[in-house]
Formats: sequence, structure tokens, C-alpha cells
Amino acid sequence: MSTSATPMSRFPMPDVLDLPQDLRDRILAVQEKSGFIPTVFLALAHRPAEFRAFFAYHDALMDKDVGLTKGEREMIVVATSSANECEYCVVAHGAILRIREKNPLIADQIAVNYRKAEITPRQRAMLDFAMKVCKHAATVDERDFELLASHGFTEDDIWDIGAIAGFFGMSNRLANMASMRPNPEFYLMGRIPREPAPAKA
Amino acid sequence: MSTSATPMSRFPMPDVLDLPQDLRDRILAVQEKSGFIPTVFLALAHRPAEFRAFFAYHDALMDKDVGLTKGEREMIVVATSSANECEYCVVAHGAILRIREKNPLIADQIAVNYRKAEITPRQRAMLDFAMKVCKHAATVDERDFELLASHGFTEDDIWDIGAIAGFFGMSNRLANMASMRPNPEFYLMGRIPREPAPAKA
Amino acid sequence: MSTSATPMSRFPMPDVLDLPQDLRDRILAVQEKSGFIPTVFLALAHRPAEFRAFFAYHDALMDKDVGLTKGEREMIVVATSSANECEYCVVAHGAILRIREKNPLIADQIAVNYRKAEITPRQRAMLDFAMKVCKHAATVDERDFELLASHGFTEDDIWDIGAIAGFFGMSNRLANMASMRPNPEFYLMGRIPREPAPAKA
Amino acid sequence: MSTSATPMSRFPMPDVLDLPQDLRDRILAVQEKSGFIPTVFLALAHRPAEFRAFFAYHDALMDKDVGLTKGEREMIVVATSSANECEYCVVAHGAILRIREKNPLIADQIAVNYRKAEITPRQRAMLDFAMKVCKHAATVDERDFELLASHGFTEDDIWDIGAIAGFFGMSNRLANMASMRPNPEFYLMGRIPREPAPAKA
Amino acid sequence: MSTSATPMSRFPMPDVLDLPQDLRDRILAVQEKSGFIPTVFLALAHRPAEFRAFFAYHDALMDKDVGLTKGEREMIVVATSSANECEYCVVAHGAILRIREKNPLIADQIAVNYRKAEITPRQRAMLDFAMKVCKHAATVDERDFELLASHGFTEDDIWDIGAIAGFFGMSNRLANMASMRPNPEFYLMGRIPREPAPAKA
Amino acid sequence: MSTSATPMSRFPMPDVLDLPQDLRDRILAVQEKSGFIPTVFLALAHRPAEFRAFFAYHDALMDKDVGLTKGEREMIVVATSSANECEYCVVAHGAILRIREKNPLIADQIAVNYRKAEITPRQRAMLDFAMKVCKHAATVDERDFELLASHGFTEDDIWDIGAIAGFFGMSNRLANMASMRPNPEFYLMGRIPREPAPAKA
Repeated sequence: MSTSATPMSRFPMPDVLDLPQDLRDRILAVQEKSGFIPTVFLALAHRPAEFRAFFAYHDALMDKDVGLTKGEREMIVVATSSANECEYCVVAHGAILRIREKNPLIADQIAVNYRKAEITPRQRAMLDFAMKVCKHAATVDERDFELLASHGFTEDDIWDIGAIAGFFGMSNRLANMASMRPNPEFYLMGRIPREPAPAKA
Repeated sequence: MSTSATPMSRFPMPDVLDLPQDLRDRILAVQEKSGFIPTVFLALAHRPAEFRAFFAYHDALMDKDVGLTKGEREMIVVATSSANECEYCVVAHGAILRIREKNPLIADQIAVNYRKAEITPRQRAMLDFAMKVCKHAATVDERDFELLASHGFTEDDIWDIGAIAGFFGMSNRLANMASMRPNPEFYLMGRIPREPAPAKA
Repeated sequence: MSTSATPMSRFPMPDVLDLPQDLRDRILAVQEKSGFIPTVFLALAHRPAEFRAFFAYHDALMDKDVGLTKGEREMIVVATSSANECEYCVVAHGAILRIREKNPLIADQIAVNYRKAEITPRQRAMLDFAMKVCKHAATVDERDFELLASHGFTEDDIWDIGAIAGFFGMSNRLANMASMRPNPEFYLMGRIPREPAPAKA
Repeated sequence: MSTSATPMSRFPMPDVLDLPQDLRDRILAVQEKSGFIPTVFLALAHRPAEFRAFFAYHDALMDKDVGLTKGEREMIVVATSSANECEYCVVAHGAILRIREKNPLIADQIAVNYRKAEITPRQRAMLDFAMKVCKHAATVDERDFELLASHGFTEDDIWDIGAIAGFFGMSNRLANMASMRPNPEFYLMGRIPREPAPAKA
Repeated sequence: MSTSATPMSRFPMPDVLDLPQDLRDRILAVQEKSGFIPTVFLALAHRPAEFRAFFAYHDALMDKDVGLTKGEREMIVVATSSANECEYCVVAHGAILRIREKNPLIADQIAVNYRKAEITPRQRAMLDFAMKVCKHAATVDERDFELLASHGFTEDDIWDIGAIAGFFGMSNRLANMASMRPNPEFYLMGRIPREPAPAKA
Repeated sequence: MSTSATPMSRFPMPDVLDLPQDLRDRILAVQEKSGFIPTVFLALAHRPAEFRAFFAYHDALMDKDVGLTKGEREMIVVATSSANECEYCVVAHGAILRIREKNPLIADQIAVNYRKAEITPRQRAMLDFAMKVCKHAATVDERDFELLASHGFTEDDIWDIGAIAGFFGMSNRLANMASMRPNPEFYLMGRIPREPAPAKA
């Protein structure tokens, strides 16, 4: 293993201090929260306008508190990113999925074969649709919507499922083109159950 | 034919007057310039945050005057959107491609089989890479970059090619999920050579 | 665009006047009716026996007035030729389809994604079967026939659908092997509504 | 096994005596020569115009004494028909191939995996091109022609290779649509070496 | 044809007399029974430990007298080996299938397109499942088991179907890697009906 | 997460104490060494003859100390098992790979997109060949052997690569058919660097 020898992105990764103020603020806020700067932030920063649009889009789809849970949104990311063989997104969002779901096994299960993962039938239907949008969007038709509705998904939920699959379809292609590498920190995140906090005395 | 009977999108299309001011301004500006409102503007407007991010991203990739020409950018859109069987993007961007290139035949040629289209070897290499990002991004490697460099593409050009393929990979999936229909106006745009302007008197 | 520079076929295109009498007659009749000679006639003429068989087969399948309409037959050609990425057939038969259906939009819709085209459910079932014959003929089974029968297709209609898909499967392969180019005239045909004839005085 | 119970074609097989004179003559001539009537003749006879065109085309491509040998033409049929999973054509033309090549093993080898068959490098190049036309005709380009030329194939030979692949692409689709069954006689033909004729006294 | 020129395996084929005693015994027993040594025995013998495991596995799956008949087991081998384009297994096990089923036509039918073969609906369901395990095992789910149960297959039968498909998935890959050639004897075996034994006097 | 609710295999998992002595010995030895019984041992035990052959084959290929390293053998397992979407093998052998290579990142990298993994060019060539055997074994030819030889692989090494890909092709199919679940212990194994042993005093 020689992460030092393999660049984190094939394209330029600017120094944070050289970036426009808004990018710098966003990146430093992430670093403060996570303890490290996820590669994607630096790998997109050489294109500030695209950076802004990318994260605005990302936040609009992933940081919502209604409809799909945040964990379910990450399930979609992991399943479709694995279909697209995107190392960065599977590893980084696999970490987030484990944390969101408080489940150390779920990300690997969904990445390898979501059909066998320990999820609910409703989540299975969600991922079936996400994978259809990922791989055969031209064949989506009204029966897909009826099936999702039968599992209780609203029209807004369905848009979210498809839009997340679409957005990461773009993200996966960018990351593969740039050979973005996930930070080593992501591989272990969410795999070790936290100690229960000691009872207050 | 009954365009009146088939909705332009399966999801809600809000009334322009009900939209936030910035969306309304953008849409009315497009309408004034084009004479009609392209479906995609109304079809995304039920999600203002995504609308803003989508068009910011679009403009960052498509409205550039350096590197790839605007016509070449549209070639990428048409070729990859056809691979994704996206009716909206092939028809609407096919129209723009004809206009940009002042060539009434080019869009259909690229949509059906770009390998046989009347383009330069450099443009062919551009589309080969765009299609690889579209269909097999996980296999992109350094030889692709070398080949593109041998045709004179800069690193920035290459990012543009891949990013456009990625962005429309998302756009195609959204349009197919929503069954967005292209406006009838697009089908004929750019197919009839303009009369030469009369000499000034 | 440089149609003059790109040959209309990679293989020899004989002079009409050098052809056997029956080929010459056929070609001149087409030219008189259409105003130009569609490439396929000249591109096949270097093989007179194959030319005769090809057009005899074509006419037997396409020039029938019972069962499928002529427009429906052209729908099959356009859908399957697009699946085979055949520039000549999609453009040339797209023109004929627009004319037969008096619909300037239908050809592009069927070429890009026939599942989203504005056609009847019966026509959709017809194209589903044609595409199955085109792409997975080995899996055709009795359920396909039952489904088509439920839409009112006779056994003769079904043979026509499959035979047209099969014949253009051959035609598409020939045209792609020879890189046949559609005549520029085809691109615009059927796109502009004719003026209604003036009332007789 | 119950060949009596399974029809030889899903579509009507007319009585030979009810056919137009020219079809009847052709079929009876085949029967006299072969000792039986191959299914395809009866299975196409319900469509006399298509029957005539089909066999005219077939003869123009398969009954030639210049360029490719008749055995090589049958190799193309067997390889491409196997790719299309066409029981009728693999079995019937496998028989003809064994006879043409006087080789009881060649047909099975080519049907299962032509890349491993005991053929010459020139024949391998021929089948590689035939399979490309069969499966990916849209990607045929000038390098294919150069490679074939380097093996000594003329332009006319190349047309023949592609046209045979194209014609049987149609034939395979018809046979699969109709579930045509090969006559039992074909399975064994050409598998048992003939006794050498006794020396004349 | 020049079987002498083409090696029976790309990897070493040891002399039988140089093999460990147990391999030698097994091979000589086969030779005595069959009259020749099938290639696979010699082609695996350079790896005695793998040889032993391979044939132990083979016998455990193929030499059973309960559940699936031996002929049905061979049907699975032929169908899946054809999907994997394995010349050795299709030809050698095709021979065994003909003998087991006393049917000279069945092996070619199943090899080319098992969906059209003259088998029972129960055997068709068996092969559909075997092909699913062969090509898309990751999508096997409970509905497959229910369908097989409805045809009377026990859980043990189902395991056998899938395990045979899996084992020959390995075998096909080894044989293709080594370019193993079937012995010429296999091609004709089981094709000629045996004379009925004369009545005992 | 509810591992208690989801069975570890869809097929019977016998009690260890009910197994034949040799199976029991093997399983208890594994349990003693690992601290738990990996699912595959119990999931195959209902078929003792297959169990014996499976593990004999496995050991012959995986427990060798010459040629490929044990870590490299596990790389092949992880890459091909991921292509086959086999949850059990990717997770269980991913754990072994991390341990063999003393690298907590390598298994996820190879599982998601081995082309981007931090491995040597020689290992990349090894995995390219393993994946070819896994997905397109029928196309393996002499050029593959030459390429591997140029990286220093011996003929024995090449057999090992292909045989491991073949063996796990079988294993993956069995595990997917049986919906075998990896033991929870595997997910974390090899991810946390061991403390360096304290210096002896």
C-alpha cells in the first residue's frame, strides 16, 4: 500500500488557501466536522462554478428531513455507485451509510448485491427503482410508479430516488474519470460500535 | 399525434407565475429569446433548489468560450443522450447543435451512429471518450488521456468532455424518469438554411 | 459538412447507364417520383442479383395494403434500425414514416426511445415485438403471440412485423458495412406541413 | 423425442401441391436431390413473394464459385446462426458445412466456439468479421477492411462475408419467430465418412 | 482437419504411466470402458490434487440415481456449457446426453437454443433455472424456488440443478483457458440408433 | 439489522455433531483457529461428498506456497467474486485478503473497481486475466499468455490464476443460489492495524 505514491485525483487539487472564499469556507467547515477533507471537495475545487453547483445539488437531494430517511438516501448512493464501479463513492458513502443506519454491515451488503441485503421489502423496492434509473432509465414506465406507490412512496419520494440515482450517475462518472481516491479514514468509519456512554453519576 | 393529450412531464409543471422570482426571471428570459419555454425549465421547477443547481451546472459546462466550441459541446450531449435513449435531450440539443454548427444534418448523424458522422478525426476522438465516460467510465485510464492529448485536447478540454457526458448522464435519467417531452418547436429548428440577409441599402 | 468529400457508400456505386435494363428502369422510376436517387439503389447495384432479390423482398413486405398500415410498417423500420444504429435506414425511413403518418414528430420519437413515443398501445405492442425479434429473437415464444393477438393482430400481421424486423436487420447490417449515407433530401422530408390546397374557385 | 408432436413451424406449412408452379418446381427439385424437403422451403411457402425473394437472395450469395469457397460460406452461416441461437440454421447448414468441407467435426467446432475451431488464420479473420457484422455492425470501420485485405480477401469477398452474415441475420430471426425445426435427416449428414469408391477394374 | 497438429490442451498432458497410481487407475478404467481416454482426464492430470477434487465433485453431482435423471443432468451441462461457449463440454457431454436419453437429436437442440428443444415443460423449467444460475446467479430469488417446486422439483433437486450449473461453470472456464479439444470419438457417439439386439435363441 | 431473522443459508445447515467425522474434524479445527465457523462450511455440509471435493479443490488452489502469493490468490477471489456479485465471497475473502496483505484498504479497492486499486502492474495483469476467465473465458487466446509471461508469470502461475477464477465462479454461484450470508466477524477482520508486539524484556 502506498497512498502517498498514488495521487488522490488525476486532475489538479488546489491548495485550500488559494480557493475563493466560499469554497474555502465550505471545505474548512467539513474538515472541522470530519477531521479531514474528503477528496471530492479538493478534486472539484479547480472548477469553482462546478463545485458550487455540485454541492448545491448534492445538498438539495441528500440533506432533507422529509420522505426518505438520510440512511435510505445513502443506500441509493451505495447501490448505484457500486453498479457504476465507483471506488470513491462506494467507500465514502458506504461510511456515511453505516453511520446513518448505525449498522456496520449494511454498506458492504448493499455494495456487493443489494438483492441479498438485510433491508425491508420497501427499501428493496426503492433500490430496484434506483437501479433501473441507473442502468435502464429509458425503460421506466408507469408500472414502476405503481409498484413504488404500493410500498407507500409518494411522488416526491420517487423523484428523490430517481434524482439521487441520476446525480450519483454523474458523480460516479466524474470520480472514475479523475480516478479519485477515497480518504483512508472512510474505510473504517462506522464499523466499530460505539461504547455506550457511561451513565451519568 | 396528440401532443395536447400527452403531458410534457409525468411530474408537476408549476405555473411560471407561482415560481420564486429568480426561476421566473430565468424562464421568462428564455421564453423571450426562444419564443417558447423549453419543457425542462418547467419540469424541474417544482424543485427550486435542484432547478438552480441544475442550470448553474449546465451553464458552467455549456456556456464557455474557451477550449471546445459550443457546437462540440452539443455534439457530446447528442451522442451520449442518444446512447441513453433520452428523447428530450436528443431532440432539444439536436436543434441547438444544428444551429451552433450551421449544419442541418449533423444532429441526426451523431444521434444514430456518431462513428459514421461527418466530423473531424479530432471530434471523433472527443466523442469516443465521451461515450466511454457515458457507458464504461470505470475503465477510463491513462491511455485515453494520451490519445486525447495527441489530438490537441488540453487537460481542461478533457475534463469538459467527461463532465458534459456526466452531467447529461444525470439529465437523461431525470428526463426519462419524468418522460419529459421536447417542445414541438425543437424538431424543425436549424433544419432550414436561413435566407442570406439582404444587403444593407 | 462536406457531403461531397464523404462517399455515399464504401463500395462501388455504378453509373446508372451501365446497369442492366431492369435495374436502370427501377432506379429511373424512383428518381422520377422522388426527384433524386436514394443511395441504397446505387449502393446495391454493383450486385444485380442481390439488388433484384433485395427490392423484391422489400416490396413484398412494405408495399402491402392489408393488415398493418404502411405507416406502421415504417415505424417498425425506424425503431429496429435505430437499435442497430443504422444511419441510412433511420434517416431515409424516418422521412417516409413522417410522410406516411403526416406527422413531423413521430420519426424522431420512435428513433430515440419508441417506449415514450406518442403512439397507440397497439402500436406499442407491435414495436415491442419487433424489437424482441430484432434483439432477442431466440426468446420469442407463444406468450408473445398471445399478447399480440389480444391487441387484434392476426397471424399474418405478426409474420409481417417479425419479417420486417428481420429484413431490416439484414439491411441495417449491409448499410453499416458499406457506410451508406442517406441523401441530404431525406433529413427534411415530411417535417414541414404542406399548405392546404387553395379552394377551387 | 416426439418430432411428430412438435410442428415443424409455428406458421402454416402449405401442401406442396397447392403452391404456385415455380415454388412447387423448386421444392420438388430439392426433394429429389436431397431425399426430403428441408423445413424452410415449406415454412416460407405461405408467402410466395417472400419465398421467391428469399431463395433468389440465398442463391446469389451461397451458390457462387468465385472468391470464398462454398464451405467457407457455410462456415459464416454456422458461426453467425449460432450467435443468434437459431436451431434450424445451425443444424441444417452445419450438415451442409460438413459435406462441403468433407469434415465431420468442423460444424460443431464452429457452432460452439469458432475461435477454437481448427480453421486457417485466414478463415478465422473471415469469421471475426462476419461475427462483427452479426453483432456490432455499427462499429465496422476501415481497419476491418485493412485486416481482411492483409489476409488476401478482395473487396468482393468482403461484401460476400458481410452480406451472408446479414442475410442469415434475417433468416435466423424468421426461423426463431416461426420456431422452425430442422429435419431429422440433417443431424447426421456428413458425420460418417464415405467409403472410398472401389477402384475401377 | 488436422487434429494431429492442434494439441488437445494448451497445458501439459502427462503420460498416463507417469501418473500417481490412483489417477492411472481411474484413467485406465475409463479407457477400458470407453475405448479412448477423454481429453479432460489427461488435461487435468498435471495437477493431481485438482484432478482428484474435480472428479470427486463431478461424480457426486453426476452419478446419482435419485432425483434428476442422469439424462437431465447432462441436459444442464450441455445448455450451460453452450452458453459459456465451451467446445469440450458441449461436444463430450452432448454425446453422453444422446446416449442417456437414447435421442440422437436432443444434444444439438439444447446446445443451440434450449428454449426450442423438444423437452417437457418440467425440463424447460429446470434449464431456465440452470441458465439463470449460469448467467445471473446474483438475481436468483425465492420466486425461482417456488416455480421449480410447482414443477415437482424437491429442494435436493434444485440444489443439484444449481450445483451442476456451478460446477460446469468452473469446468467450462478451465477448458476454455486450456483450449481443450474433445476427442473425435465424441462427435458421432449416440447419433446412430443401435440395432436391436437379436433375440436369444 | 436482524441477522438473527435472516438465515445464513437458504438450504439446510446441519448440526456439526450430526456430521460425518471428517467433516466434523475439519469444521471444529476451523472454529478453533478462527473463533467462529464460517457459513460456507455449514452451508455445504448437507452434502458431505460435495463438501469434501469442494474443500479439497479449494485447498489445492489456495494453500500453496509457490508461485502466486496467498495474498494474490485472495485478490483474484475478491475481484471475480465482486464481478459475480457474491456477498459471501467478497466479504469473507475480503477479510482474508486484508490479513494476508496486511492492508486494510486493499479488499474494498479491488471489490469496487480493481482497475483503480493500488496494486502493482503485475498484479493488475493477473487480475485482468482472472476477470477475462471469469467473464469471457471463451475468448482467452495465446496473446493473453504472452502478456502474462511478459510480467514474469510461469505457466503454472497462469493455470493457478484461471483455476482460481474458475473455482470461485462455481463457489459464487452456489453461494448466490443458497443466499449464503457471511459471518458478521468477517466485516471487520483485518481493518484495524494490530498493535506492534511489545518488545521482549
